[in-house]
Amino acid sequence: MTPQKTKDTVANKSNSFDYDMIVIGCGPAGQRAAIQAAKLRKKVAIIDRREVVGGVCVNTGTIPSKSFKEAVLFLSGFRQRNIYGASYRVKTDIKMSDLTFRCNRIMQLEIEVIKNQLNRNHVDTLYGHAAFIDPHTLEITSKSGTVKKTAAQFVIAVGAKPYRPPNVHFNGRTIFDSDDVLNLQNLPREMTVVGGGVIGTEYGSMFAALGVNVTMVDARKRLLGFVDEELNDTFHYQMRSMGVRLRLGEEVESCKPREDNAVVTVLKSGKVIVSDCVLYSAGRVSATSDLGLNTIGIPTDERGKISVNEHFQTTQPHIYAAGDVIGFPALASTSARQGRLATCHAFGVKDTIMDVPLPFGIYAIPEISYVGMNEDELTKQGVPYETGVARYREIARGQLLGDENGMLKVLFHRETEQVLGVHIIGEYATELIHIGQAVMALKGGLGYLRDAVFNYPTLAECYKVAALDGYNKLRA
Amino acid sequence: MTPQKTKDTVANKSNSFDYDMIVIGCGPAGQRAAIQAAKLRKKVAIIDRREVVGGVCVNTGTIPSKSFKEAVLFLSGFRQRNIYGASYRVKTDIKMSDLTFRCNRIMQLEIEVIKNQLNRNHVDTLYGHAAFIDPHTLEITSKSGTVKKTAAQFVIAVGAKPYRPPNVHFNGRTIFDSDDVLNLQNLPREMTVVGGGVIGTEYGSMFAALGVNVTMVDARKRLLGFVDEELNDTFHYQMRSMGVRLRLGEEVESCKPREDNAVVTVLKSGKVIVSDCVLYSAGRVSATSDLGLNTIGIPTDERGKISVNEHFQTTQPHIYAAGDVIGFPALASTSARQGRLATCHAFGVKDTIMDVPLPFGIYAIPEISYVGMNEDELTKQGVPYETGVARYREIARGQLLGDENGMLKVLFHRETEQVLGVHIIGEYATELIHIGQAVMALKGGLGYLRDAVFNYPTLAECYKVAALDGYNKLRA
Repeated sequence: MTPQKTKDTVANKSNSFDYDMIVIGCGPAGQRAAIQAAKLRKKVAIIDRREVVGGVCVNTGTIPSKSFKEAVLFLSGFRQRNIYGASYRVKTDIKMSDLTFRCNRIMQLEIEVIKNQLNRNHVDTLYGHAAFIDPHTLEITSKSGTVKKTAAQFVIAVGAKPYRPPNVHFNGRTIFDSDDVLNLQNLPREMTVVGGGVIGTEYGSMFAALGVNVTMVDARKRLLGFVDEELNDTFHYQMRSMGVRLRLGEEVESCKPREDNAVVTVLKSGKVIVSDCVLYSAGRVSATSDLGLNTIGIPTDERGKISVNEHFQTTQPHIYAAGDVIGFPALASTSARQGRLATCHAFGVKDTIMDVPLPFGIYAIPEISYVGMNEDELTKQGVPYETGVARYREIARGQLLGDENGMLKVLFHRETEQVLGVHIIGEYATELIHIGQAVMALKGGLGYLRDAVFNYPTLAECYKVAALDGYNKLRA
Repeated sequence: MTPQKTKDTVANKSNSFDYDMIVIGCGPAGQRAAIQAAKLRKKVAIIDRREVVGGVCVNTGTIPSKSFKEAVLFLSGFRQRNIYGASYRVKTDIKMSDLTFRCNRIMQLEIEVIKNQLNRNHVDTLYGHAAFIDPHTLEITSKSGTVKKTAAQFVIAVGAKPYRPPNVHFNGRTIFDSDDVLNLQNLPREMTVVGGGVIGTEYGSMFAALGVNVTMVDARKRLLGFVDEELNDTFHYQMRSMGVRLRLGEEVESCKPREDNAVVTVLKSGKVIVSDCVLYSAGRVSATSDLGLNTIGIPTDERGKISVNEHFQTTQPHIYAAGDVIGFPALASTSARQGRLATCHAFGVKDTIMDVPLPFGIYAIPEISYVGMNEDELTKQGVPYETGVARYREIARGQLLGDENGMLKVLFHRETEQVLGVHIIGEYATELIHIGQAVMALKGGLGYLRDAVFNYPTLAECYKVAALDGYNKLRA
């Protein structure tokens, strides 16, 4: 193979390869890694297995579930029920096609945006299945044949896919994972959701908001166990208010279709749940099985996960891994950051990123978001904290939105008044959290939240109300 | 009159009066002044002319217009048009009662919240019309008679009402001001809005979103002339896209009802506008005319406005004024802050409020919000700034919301990288602005916005995209 010379003279150290960098996988981590390399004027290619870019984030994960959620909220009139009455529906007979029609359009738009961004930055896009044949060469197989491409450095960002245990008889129709849930033809009457993690609770709450009878099963005693207890209680309360049955501390023995098309889920405790369908959403595996990692000596664990060091390097220092493929926290936002950091390290660019606390967002109904520590963690550490709480219903905009159960809680140090954590449940929680994040990162303290003037009416006013509540508690 | 002794010994310097403080007016400034006094354990009363608390903010101003806006957005399906197509309506035949039904309920809820807050804080509420008869005594007249109440100190927070010039024949039915607009019985086919300030453009854009043919008239060459030019252009573009006719740089000669119930507005340029109704919204006057201010020597200007010093004191140092009654900026948020500051000064409490830049919010369709300086102001001051821009349509959540024209612009100093201003037009602009406000106040700089991880998908990501855009421009 004749090495293709790069035009860019900066990249001459790697001019014996086709590319300075090849990124495998087109999700948030891969996109950001590739674009960062392009911005450093490197010759870079990105490989995706599908004929479309975006990774699971755009194609089966984040974006479809979030556009599904918007459609659910809108068409079910969920936000307006507190104002117009519980029987209010925008559409009385909601079909799956009403809900996913919107998803498809948004996915197409999002794919366009990503394609444009990659093109604008002169990132080559290669389609097909990639596997390492040596530490600097990939074999890329697609319908049009097989090509070999070499690069000085690599970023593996192939993501993850749902885990499928053998005791669950997946058929993609009545027993399916989160990749297939939006392919449902009809809205079921009853749905069993196995797995009370982020994906399971997001879908479980959405189908419940649509009026589906949802049963949630999880081996742990709580849904979303990592969420602050007070918010978590509120979440459990609201899930039950929507009619969700919770089967917590229960494990699945088997899950099979019955002759009449119903699905029977048997729990280890002996309980039996019969429903129209089962969404199985307990764990994910990294999509590394056919990447040729054995060939080049990069180990993976039993769930396909690749281990990396603090610079996102694998055991092969010129091969990085980022995003879901390396495991926790596996969020689109953190994956993008990892991709950027991997590329910067690969090209020796110092990218000293500020130490900003990481927000978590759960796009369930209701939405949950938090940043920093929760009450449990602070108590264990013996930090003398105090809380300031605001309820959406005390705030004009909370009433305008009809969200009666939303709340925002600020945890702060009673002596230094530094903000230690912010926890929000309710509309726009995932947006609102960034105000608290900035105040935490930039050390504004509770005083900032008390003193700042907020637009009226906004949900952001919750911060002020919570701060005033917090100061009142200090005085007491 | 027997002086009523306060239980609180802290207040003994004023125990020859009925109250330590009386606050006149129940809007945001009055509420906050009274509650602040109560929190300082003072004996305080609040007076409102109506039998309900809230001021124009709750009863005819901010809250009704904002709940009207939510109803317009929801029932017109405005947010969903970019996704479901322009003909999409939640309700095909929208009536005024559909839109205001919601307003009434939210107003009642909001009034409940305020009443509770005042009661909880032991603020006495007195109903009736108050007028000073000497510098420490008010005469309060209501249906049930007249009483006199004395206080050591006062806060005047009576607000403002629409200005009604003599050449406009108000009838409250087809020619009305913003206090009466929501009393409209039927949705008009054509509406003329005189005044391109905040209130005029808010209502003008809402009626346009409902499909009403709106004509906006203003003597100035621009609607919302104080808004950053780029956003302002976008706003004009979007207003015209909704079918709004703009008659700018034009003054009203006369405005009269015709025999057939149509309204004829004649402009000084000779143009004639015929429409079903006219919303006249050009300026406000402070509601001070019958407060007895002459008696106690507090002057007002030709529009009823009271002048105050930096502590919000009038020419009578024990009488403060706050809120709309003292003029610009006359926002609910700033009024609340003024009320609090006035009370703190009155009781000698040092309330050193942080120097946080003030956000402005315009609840038009589309929403506009900004904080800090705009391009014009920075150019005049010779500040070497650069801009970072993000468009909603480039952001996943922008597409989820169907907002194709939204944008966020960060202005920053090209050497220090400090954020000098943030300007947003589009959905949730009034909420989003507070992230930029915190970063400006706490000196996070553009680097913060680049480095922070934001939840995905959120509109808050616009900040990151804008920061990356800004850094690219610095490099160029």
